[in-house]
Formats: sequence, C-alpha cells, structure tokens
Amino acid sequence: MPIRLTSRDADFAQRFAALLETKREVSEDVDRAVAEIIADVRARGDAALYDLTLRFDRVDLTGVGLQVSASEIAAARGEIDAPTLAALELAAERIRSHHARQMPKDDVYTDALGVTLGSRWSAIEAVGLYVPGGTASYPSSVLMNAVPAKVAGVDRVVMVVPTPDGRLNPLVLAAADLAGVDEVWRIGGAQAVAALAYGTESIAPVAKIVGPGNAYVAAAKRRVFGKVGIDMIAGPSEVLIVADGNNDPEWLAADLLAQAEHDAAAQSILITDSPELADRVAAAVEAQIPMLGRAATARASWQDYGAIIVVDRLEQAVPLADRIAAEHLEVALDDPEPFAAQIRNAGAIFLGHHTPEAIGDYVGGSNHVLPTARSARFSSGLSVLDFVKRTSILRLDADGLRALGPAAMLLADAEGLDAHRRSVGIRLNR
Amino acid sequence: MPIRLTSRDADFAQRFAALLETKREVSEDVDRAVAEIIADVRARGDAALYDLTLRFDRVDLTGVGLQVSASEIAAARGEIDAPTLAALELAAERIRSHHARQMPKDDVYTDALGVTLGSRWSAIEAVGLYVPGGTASYPSSVLMNAVPAKVAGVDRVVMVVPTPDGRLNPLVLAAADLAGVDEVWRIGGAQAVAALAYGTESIAPVAKIVGPGNAYVAAAKRRVFGKVGIDMIAGPSEVLIVADGNNDPEWLAADLLAQAEHDAAAQSILITDSPELADRVAAAVEAQIPMLGRAATARASWQDYGAIIVVDRLEQAVPLADRIAAEHLEVALDDPEPFAAQIRNAGAIFLGHHTPEAIGDYVGGSNHVLPTARSARFSSGLSVLDFVKRTSILRLDADGLRALGPAAMLLADAEGLDAHRRSVGIRLNR
Repeated sequence: MPIRLTSRDADFAQRFAALLETKREVSEDVDRAVAEIIADVRARGDAALYDLTLRFDRVDLTGVGLQVSASEIAAARGEIDAPTLAALELAAERIRSHHARQMPKDDVYTDALGVTLGSRWSAIEAVGLYVPGGTASYPSSVLMNAVPAKVAGVDRVVMVVPTPDGRLNPLVLAAADLAGVDEVWRIGGAQAVAALAYGTESIAPVAKIVGPGNAYVAAAKRRVFGKVGIDMIAGPSEVLIVADGNNDPEWLAADLLAQAEHDAAAQSILITDSPELADRVAAAVEAQIPMLGRAATARASWQDYGAIIVVDRLEQAVPLADRIAAEHLEVALDDPEPFAAQIRNAGAIFLGHHTPEAIGDYVGGSNHVLPTARSARFSSGLSVLDFVKRTSILRLDADGLRALGPAAMLLADAEGLDAHRRSVGIRLNR
Repeated sequence: MPIRLTSRDADFAQRFAALLETKREVSEDVDRAVAEIIADVRARGDAALYDLTLRFDRVDLTGVGLQVSASEIAAARGEIDAPTLAALELAAERIRSHHARQMPKDDVYTDALGVTLGSRWSAIEAVGLYVPGGTASYPSSVLMNAVPAKVAGVDRVVMVVPTPDGRLNPLVLAAADLAGVDEVWRIGGAQAVAALAYGTESIAPVAKIVGPGNAYVAAAKRRVFGKVGIDMIAGPSEVLIVADGNNDPEWLAADLLAQAEHDAAAQSILITDSPELADRVAAAVEAQIPMLGRAATARASWQDYGAIIVVDRLEQAVPLADRIAAEHLEVALDDPEPFAAQIRNAGAIFLGHHTPEAIGDYVGGSNHVLPTARSARFSSGLSVLDFVKRTSILRLDADGLRALGPAAMLLADAEGLDAHRRSVGIRLNR
C-alpha cells in the first residue's frame, strides 16, 4: 500500500518530512571499480575499450569496430515502420522549434562612463551523449539531448551506446540520425565516459558529457567532472499530481502509473482536497496495474514510494508541492494557471486535464530531461543553455580607466594585492 | 625561468600540448576526512560546529555564538576608511547594474496547434556563500557572489566565513552588508559546507552553495552536490595576454604579475608576434617582481608556470588561445575586436591597452568568478543564471491532445512503456 497522509493529522508535519527524506536510490559502491576503468582507458585507449566491452557487454568488437557506420544507421532507419518514424520526426521537429527560442542573445553595451561590457555566447565545440543500452535505451532521450545541442550550434555531438550481447535498438540510431548526431560509438559504461573525457586513438575527446546512465556511468561522470563538464546526475523519476474532486480517477491513476512503470524507485504522489477522489484513484491504480506490461515495476514503485496526501484546502498544496519540488507536476484543475503561478519549485508543470505527463516525454516540444530528487529547488531541465557558454567582455579607454582605476587600486590595496594595484597605476602613471 | 615556445620550432605542437596538460593543482587526498566531518555535522549539528571550529580555527565560539550579529557588522563598517568604503560601494553598484541585465525572461507561448508551452524562471529560495578566511578573504569576492544572488531574487543569502584565531576581515563584513547578505556565520571548512547543505539547530539548510575555498571545501562541495546545487570547483587563476609589438612591456609585465601574485599555482602566459616584445616583457617581469609585497608567490608562479609563446603571425594565436581557454584573456592590440571576435573559449576578454584584468576583478561590473583550468571550453562565469532555475510549462486542450496524442502513443509503444501510452489513450478513449 502506498503511504496516505491527511493534513489534519497531528503527525502530518513529521510524516510529510519523512516522505521527503525517503531515499529512493540504492547507492552502489562502484567508485573504486570506476576509477580503475577510467585509468585503464587513459592508459591503453582503444585496446581497453575492446577488452572492457567484451567483459561487460559480452560482445567482441574487433570485427565490427568501435564506431557505428553510416550504412548501419541508414539500415536501422529502414527497419522502422513509417508511422513510428513519422512520430519520431514530429517529436524532433517540435523539440527543435521550442529549443530554438531558448538561444540566449549577446548583450554588449557601453555605459555612461564609456565602459563597454557585456556577454557573448558561443556553443561548446564537442559534446558527448551517453545513451544506455538494453531496455532503458530510449529514442526519445536521444532526441531530447542531441537536438538542443545541435540547436545550440555544437560542432560535434558524439553518442556512445553500449550494445549488450551485440543488440542495438534501431530506433535509437534513427533518432540519432534525425537529431544530427555526428558520431556513434558502440561502447558504454564508465569506459565510454572515460573515452569521451580523455579521448583514445579513435575517439577525439569532448568538452562536456550529458545523458542518463546507471550507477557506473554516474560515478564516472562525477569523476571526470572538471576535466569536462557534465549535466546533472539523474535520479529516479517522479510525478506529483495536484487535483480537486472534479477529475476522472481513471485518468489520474493512469498518470500515476506512467511514472511508476519507469523504475521500481520512481515515485508517484497525489495531493487532493477530496477524500473521495483519493479513494477512487487508489482503487483505479490497483485495477489498472494488472493491465500493464511492466506491472511488477509499477506495483513495486507504487507500493514502496507512492503517496496520497489529502488536504483541507488546495492552497495547502502549494507549500507542499514546493517542498517536494517534483520533476513533473500535474495541476489537474479546470483553471490550473492560478495554482501553477504560485509554484516555485518544479521541473515541469503540466496544466489542466488534457496534458498527461507522457506528452512532455515525447512530443510536447519541451525537454524531458528534468531535475529529479528535489533538485528542482536549485536546478533546471536540460536546455540550449547547457550547450553554450558565456564570455564576459570588458573594454575601457584611457578616460574609463581614469574614472574607475582609482577605486580598483583602493580595493586591491585593501586586499593586499600589490601587483593588481600596480597594473592599474602604471597606466595612470602612479 | 618561464617556458618559452616559438611556433616555428619543430617540437612546438608537442611542447604546447604539454603546456596545456601541466597540472597546477595539488590534489590533496582529503576526501576521507571530509566525509567524517560531514557525518559529524549531520549527527551532532551545532555541537559539531563548535567542536570542529575549535579544532580547525583554534577559536572557541561558545561565548560569541555561531552567528555574526548585526551590531558586529555595523561596527565593521565603521572601521573602514571612507574612500575604501566608497570604492566598495561603486563596485557593488556596478556589479548590480550589470547583472540586472542578465535576468532571463519568461517565455510562455501558444503554438499553431494551440499547445501552450514555454519556460518560467524563479529564484532559488536560499543560497549559501562560502568565503575563505585569512589572506584569501576578499571583500570583492563577497560582492561578486552575493550581489548576483540578490539581483536574481534569492530570499536568503547565507554567508559562512571562518575566523581563524578569531580574526575576521571587517571589509568582508562590510561587503556582505552592502550586498544584502541575510545571515553571516563564523564557520568554515567542510563543516560549514555540511551545515549549509544539511542544516543544524541554528542554521536552516540552503538549496545551493557557491564560493571559493580550499581543498577541504572543494571536496565537501563535491560530496554534497546532488543534495544541494554547487557552482564550479574553482582552480588556480590564469591570464593569457595576446599582444603585438606595439605595447608597453612594463604594462604587460604588470598584468602578468597581477595574476602570478594570487597563488604559486597561478599561470600567466604571453603570446606575441614580436620576439623583441617577448624579451622586453620577460625582462620587465624580472625587474618588477622585487617591488611586490607578494614577490615570492609571484616569482614561484612565473617560474613554474609562466610561458611566453612567440608566433609568426597573430592569427596563429586564435587556435592557441581557444585551446588554452583562459579564465582571463587580454587582447592588447590597438584594434582588439576583430581578434576577440574569433575567440570561442575564454572566461572573460579584456580589450585594448587600457583594460588591465584587475579592473574586472573589482569595478568593471562583470563577474570575476570565471572558469579556470581550461573549463571555459564548457562553462561560464558566475551570473544571475546561477541563482535562478527554469520550470517548463505545457498545456494541451482536448484538441491539442487529439493532434499530438497519437504520435506520443506510438513512441510510448516503441519504448515498451504501456502506462505512458494508456495515460494518453484513456483521454482519447482508446
């Protein structure tokens, strides 16, 4: 049974705090193994990649080589039925047009003192994209990571994807092709992260690595952080639905389960001011679970981490939602905007009765890579901003230096930085 | 002697690559100690802070308490001479007005299908600011971190600063006051980072931690990353000056030394097409070092990591500068813009002969927290964007769901995610 809380209960505050603190990630201690793998790739390059792939993915790449060829990618595209390919193209196009709006603009201006200053944006030159193998190998995830990189102007988008037992999802290759991925390598795990960060004989290094992965991949990304940039370390997914009594419990149950089916560690939470709806949703979830292909996963997630919270008034849900800081927040109200406008912490908000979160996973146009595990309190979903960087610009002429120099010299003095003061004073002849 | 390279030399490519790979950071193995400190603060809260501060900072806070009081801050402000306070105010005001331009704008729009989508920005609720103690306790750094946070709208800016042997720089407190810092705590090291991330009886936790620190602070930030957000892990500072023969070698020497005096691990590099200028700058550096209060530090940095690179033509400096990806790039040319426009990787660019980098450290208005150690290839200096986060917005009506739903269902099918498909289909009655 999922947890059920009622805001009127005397111990509500404590139980809600406990819900927030529930640890859903199994932190496997893989750091030592990962350190060894990275050292091996740095020392032996391609040879290490062949050996480690044989060991972990049970596939000998010495025949086919490390890189996926253009003809393999074309063949993969040919394997896909036309409606699915069209759906993938629709998704890519919507992601592209939405993310194009996110491109930041340069802002270089001259102020009242004649000082020119501002910001200039440029794309990262090369980005690595990690794509998991096996059942978590999602074409939508390829689009969500690669399309914004290309929109940003990244020259080289380099995808790595393991092929356990030699299997590679043709949809993943088709998505890479649609997104404009420049290179695809059939490697995975910490060894792929190491190859992207440090390079090998075959693979030129990148400047940043993005994309989801298992505990090994996450540990490897943490280790190479600094040498290259990384995106967030993604945790298990979660949804929070805020609903009044005017909702179809079947719809809400379907949405809760769409989250739960991802992962036994996923979390689905309903907050409602209607105890009746709470009961009916709980019943609908139980009724729907057996219909799912991934029933066992969904059941485990719902039983272990699911929660229904009944409040007296929906306004009480605002601070609760902000503390939960959900990756996905559905506001299932007839007039959802006033509620949503009060929310400060959420990765993405899905408004009204006809916006199931799954739309955002695929074809909404916004990004489905979103902050998990309460990190929406301090971070954002993936965007074009993750693939560009800003250079500050400053230019003074002699007059500007006369205006600002003395203050800089005083502050340099106050900080005991002689040479800082001298570098200004020598130009002002003092 | 600093290294000297000439682009005509047969081994230039190898020697330049070696220069890029030079490791300037001493990576102390402090991770185990830091893990113990964090666990202690989590377990014992304030009591651990008192004990650890006594141990590491040699100061017993049981009398004065953990928090710096308003009257102490007012008293500190009173200790500062009027011209220095005015300089600090000028710096704060210029930082404020520049960073106000960086506030991102919400962008929520309705597309041709009637789908409403976009981005909404909000400030992080609470941010911790680490300020080092002792000689590296810089008021300018307080302004550069705290002012953008306040411009972004952060409600609670919480500063921690150790007071080794009880000493606290009054300028640091004055800067905190000017910047609008909400709380100041006299703690430092990994224990301060732990207190900010997890909270104690006295200190409410924050959502993100920024600011420079020693190896313990950096290791602690890495450890709490995920629980809270962190800014970059800053490395030693560096400057690259690109100059033609038409420069005063004394000015350039002063700029190289302004970098070198920061830290024995700082790096100053000159690239020029004039062998004569190269010689004269080298001589000027030697002549100026003895004039500096921090002569020993500057000499160590220049001897160990300084470099002069002579190229045939200045255009050759463009790809070299992009590979160096310097934190600070000075373009000391009469007409610097055409050169600067070609640069892709730099934290900040200082243009012309009258923009010594020290202006950017204090009163330029742009931020002096910039990516070091070649990380300008993938990251940016501190800005208002580091203190806000973006929430995606998506709203479909019934028509929009009819338009997009079928494609989402196909992709959910392709990914084997039944419940995703059902959450859409149940609303379309299929």
